Amino acid sequence: GWLVDGLKLLQRMNLELPSVGDYDIKVQMLAAPINPSDINMVQGTYAILPDLPAIGGNEGVGRVLDVGSRVSSVKAGDLVIPSNTGLGTWATEAVGNESAFVKLPIDVPLLCAATLAVNPCTAYRMLYDFESLKPGDSVIQNGANSAVGQAVIQIAHAMGLKTINVIRDRPDLQKLTDRLQSMGANYVVTEEALRKPEMKEIFKEVPRPRLALNCVGGKSTVEVLRQLHALIFKDIKIRGFWVTRWKQDNIHEPSKLLKMITELCDLIRAGKLTAPACTEVPLQDYRVALEAATKPFIGTKQILIM
Amino acid sequence: GWLVDGLKLLQRMNLELPSVGDYDIKVQMLAAPINPSDINMVQGTYAILPDLPAIGGNEGVGRVLDVGSRVSSVKAGDLVIPSNTGLGTWATEAVGNESAFVKLPIDVPLLCAATLAVNPCTAYRMLYDFESLKPGDSVIQNGANSAVGQAVIQIAHAMGLKTINVIRDRPDLQKLTDRLQSMGANYVVTEEALRKPEMKEIFKEVPRPRLALNCVGGKSTVEVLRQLHALIFKDIKIRGFWVTRWKQDNIHEPSKLLKMITELCDLIRAGKLTAPACTEVPLQDYRVALEAATKPFIGTKQILIM
Repeated sequence: GWLVDGLKLLQRMNLELPSVGDYDIKVQMLAAPINPSDINMVQGTYAILPDLPAIGGNEGVGRVLDVGSRVSSVKAGDLVIPSNTGLGTWATEAVGNESAFVKLPIDVPLLCAATLAVNPCTAYRMLYDFESLKPGDSVIQNGANSAVGQAVIQIAHAMGLKTINVIRDRPDLQKLTDRLQSMGANYVVTEEALRKPEMKEIFKEVPRPRLALNCVGGKSTVEVLRQLHALIFKDIKIRGFWVTRWKQDNIHEPSKLLKMITELCDLIRAGKLTAPACTEVPLQDYRVALEAATKPFIGTKQILIM
Repeated sequence: GWLVDGLKLLQRMNLELPSVGDYDIKVQMLAAPINPSDINMVQGTYAILPDLPAIGGNEGVGRVLDVGSRVSSVKAGDLVIPSNTGLGTWATEAVGNESAFVKLPIDVPLLCAATLAVNPCTAYRMLYDFESLKPGDSVIQNGANSAVGQAVIQIAHAMGLKTINVIRDRPDLQKLTDRLQSMGANYVVTEEALRKPEMKEIFKEVPRPRLALNCVGGKSTVEVLRQLHALIFKDIKIRGFWVTRWKQDNIHEPSKLLKMITELCDLIRAGKLTAPACTEVPLQDYRVALEAATKPFIGTKQILIM
């Protein structure tokens, strides 16, 4: 077989848009991030792959340009984001059924809107769907400085939960700790500190967590393994979560998606949920953005600006 | 601290029985196995431990000798097993509230009755409580020749399920394979064969399993780890199961326990569920039985006969 670097095959093309049917809307894309899952999709290694040729990008924000005669949920000028994976957001314009989009309040900042559909939604669902948590309860997570981790910190803080945030040791540890605490993180500890007696000090102040979020592989999965004893005797449950599946599973209940998006936008507008650090790149410089997005430890999310 | 071998401290004693209250029953114990969890309990390494001094043994069968004036569920002569962990079955007689016992049909063979409360109940719940399986569906399990594994094979067979049974390679592989197949095992494969193309032949005949039972540590837990990708993208759930917790959680719904026990006894009486290989040891020879029970690879379960 041939080993092809799908990223090198990506190119900018002029395509004809489908016509706007009665139930369709036409959207001018404004901004779209390059997520790791987008890269994996282009490389053909993601869990779901589009038929080729395909337009890349699954997340982003746009403004409605035109609506079909039977569209009722949005009007021209509205801000929308995709309601599902697979739209192809690395584009200047898109046409799709109105159900393929969710309307946002008009005053949501561009970068927040562009990065709302994946990470904050993942954080929201993980915090709400697996345990019934009350204010004062605690949650522990690793990878706390990831985009999902930052959303977890902020949403949990707004819910009145206490977060214990595990990060890898690093030269600028205090700086990162300060940043996460400014977002609402109650405790920031390194992986090394996890096994030290000082952890007990934390549990004098907050209850033991009933929810643990693991977004890291490698050594941290060993920590998952160490829980297998507890899995049996303490009835601990281990579940995977993939927001794309959640959206597909709830496609016929759009009110659930709308409720989540509305609550997240309320947090954004209240200044309680911010976008991760972003680098804005004009669409025509997409190769620069792709290269940056595939570099490890780049630290900021590449956002294509149309 | 002192490191004490709890097993050496075990001794046979004459104790006075509590009097039989209005709601109590008095039972003549007939047979009680020495399970690995009993050993761990004596050694102080199990998840739940009794206050000391304590009578060992959590599983067994007895005959009702006497009942209190307000007891309605059993009468003298009935066969009973403990409904929960902690009774102390390594004894000639026991007294307890009637809720601490479940009545069995009188014609259940002694060794089947003595070994019913833990392993067959564990197998039953794992097959019924985690996935809704229909006849023709398949189940895969490792440790298939364990006592739980053998119960899984037989109960699954009676449910019309197809079992794929993973065992370790060994000199007498064919003999064990034949024995498991005589119990109803559809496929018996070694851990090594699991990754070989011949597995595909199995899935030409039966659907891919929707339930996988893991009762082994070590290498097999690595197989669990390998599923973490699938955990996220295929929505695979990993759950622990401990029948002792199930019994505690359902203590106020005795009808659920009774339904399970009744169904298992029906299978036993129909010849579809057999006891694991047992070695019967008179109670006075308990030290011989304990020594045999702590030897690895002993292959048969030690049953104290009172």
